[in-house]
Amino acid sequence: MKMKSASFRINSSRQFEIIDITSRINDEIVDSGIGDGIINIFSRHSTSAIVVNENENGLLNDLEFCLDNLISDKYGYEHDRIDNNARAHLKSFLLSSSETVPVRNSRLDLGTWQSVFFIELDGPRSGRTVSLSIIGQTE
Amino acid sequence: MKMKSASFRINSSRQFEIIDITSRINDEIVDSGIGDGIINIFSRHSTSAIVVNENENGLLNDLEFCLDNLISDKYGYEHDRIDNNARAHLKSFLLSSSETVPVRNSRLDLGTWQSVFFIELDGPRSGRTVSLSIIGQTE
Amino acid sequence: MKMKSASFRINSSRQFEIIDITSRINDEIVDSGIGDGIINIFSRHSTSAIVVNENENGLLNDLEFCLDNLISDKYGYEHDRIDNNARAHLKSFLLSSSETVPVRNSRLDLGTWQSVFFIELDGPRSGRTVSLSIIGQTE
Repeated sequence: MKMKSASFRINSSRQFEIIDITSRINDEIVDSGIGDGIINIFSRHSTSAIVVNENENGLLNDLEFCLDNLISDKYGYEHDRIDNNARAHLKSFLLSSSETVPVRNSRLDLGTWQSVFFIELDGPRSGRTVSLSIIGQTE
Repeated sequence: MKMKSASFRINSSRQFEIIDITSRINDEIVDSGIGDGIINIFSRHSTSAIVVNENENGLLNDLEFCLDNLISDKYGYEHDRIDNNARAHLKSFLLSSSETVPVRNSRLDLGTWQSVFFIELDGPRSGRTVSLSIIGQTE
Repeated sequence: MKMKSASFRINSSRQFEIIDITSRINDEIVDSGIGDGIINIFSRHSTSAIVVNENENGLLNDLEFCLDNLISDKYGYEHDRIDNNARAHLKSFLLSSSETVPVRNSRLDLGTWQSVFFIELDGPRSGRTVSLSIIGQTE
């Protein structure tokens, strides 16, 4: 059994942006030498999220629309008096800061229609950090 | 320290269905020989979810009602032009593809009122796969 | 590689209450002797949640308001006939029972603006239990 940590940086270019990080994560798993186990994918930012779902452009637009509806812009949020991004934090609460995913044969063991996404909720930003922790058996 | 993987199949019989998988998971933990650690329970489908909560029929009906309200059917979602299940994906984003739960004494270490559920959001389907990764100490 | 379990109790004093448990978790990580790995933070109660976000009072008030809006009090929930706390369960479904977070240098490896919270959704209660599972390499 072995544990390997890694991280990478993401630059976002829009206020809301969904970035597929599946292949970057797979590269880090190969580098770790771990064949079977789990990987924890964690965003170090409270106005972002890590989720697993299908990479289809229409669906990703639907998610943006849906989150904007759920966290309405018609209220005066208290956090906006300090930092004008309350809605981004509230969307992050509804999604999640991390996902933990199985690793098999030195790859994310996802279903056919699954990708791992970093969701930027308060961009554009440079230097967003995703932290990876891979635990398992070497090949 | 040891890592053991397993998986099982689920058939759903309704469009929305909540299936208690607690005892099936406990069987796999016993088979793994791991006494203390964690288990990652991961659904390989982006129109389903894994959650932990109370197994009470009224509450599970309330959850169905609540998700239908949150992800309204009054909008024309873009993903529905490709595959007529955008709402199922959007509900899955709000719940989650996985849960990670403590294992103690070769069982899920849940509270008195907690069960682990597979939630079917786009059924009926056959052959839904739940992937388990158990990491910990042998007894 | 090593696995260490721990738990602690929380008493809540209000119906909805957000309690920062970051430093209590860090104390347990130091006690475990594990330097690098992951920690699973799990609430054993289905009317509570574990989340990671920013500890700013206005934002935490916004979260309470937002959850009350999303899970409306204008419906007659079935679970309320049995136990008058359906909305607390439904909010718990939208948040999550656990988080898994990286551990580095014997501490939670959080971003600058992140804390770990226990969210009480059906208080006041005494003896709420948070279960910790720390897996990784000793220093």
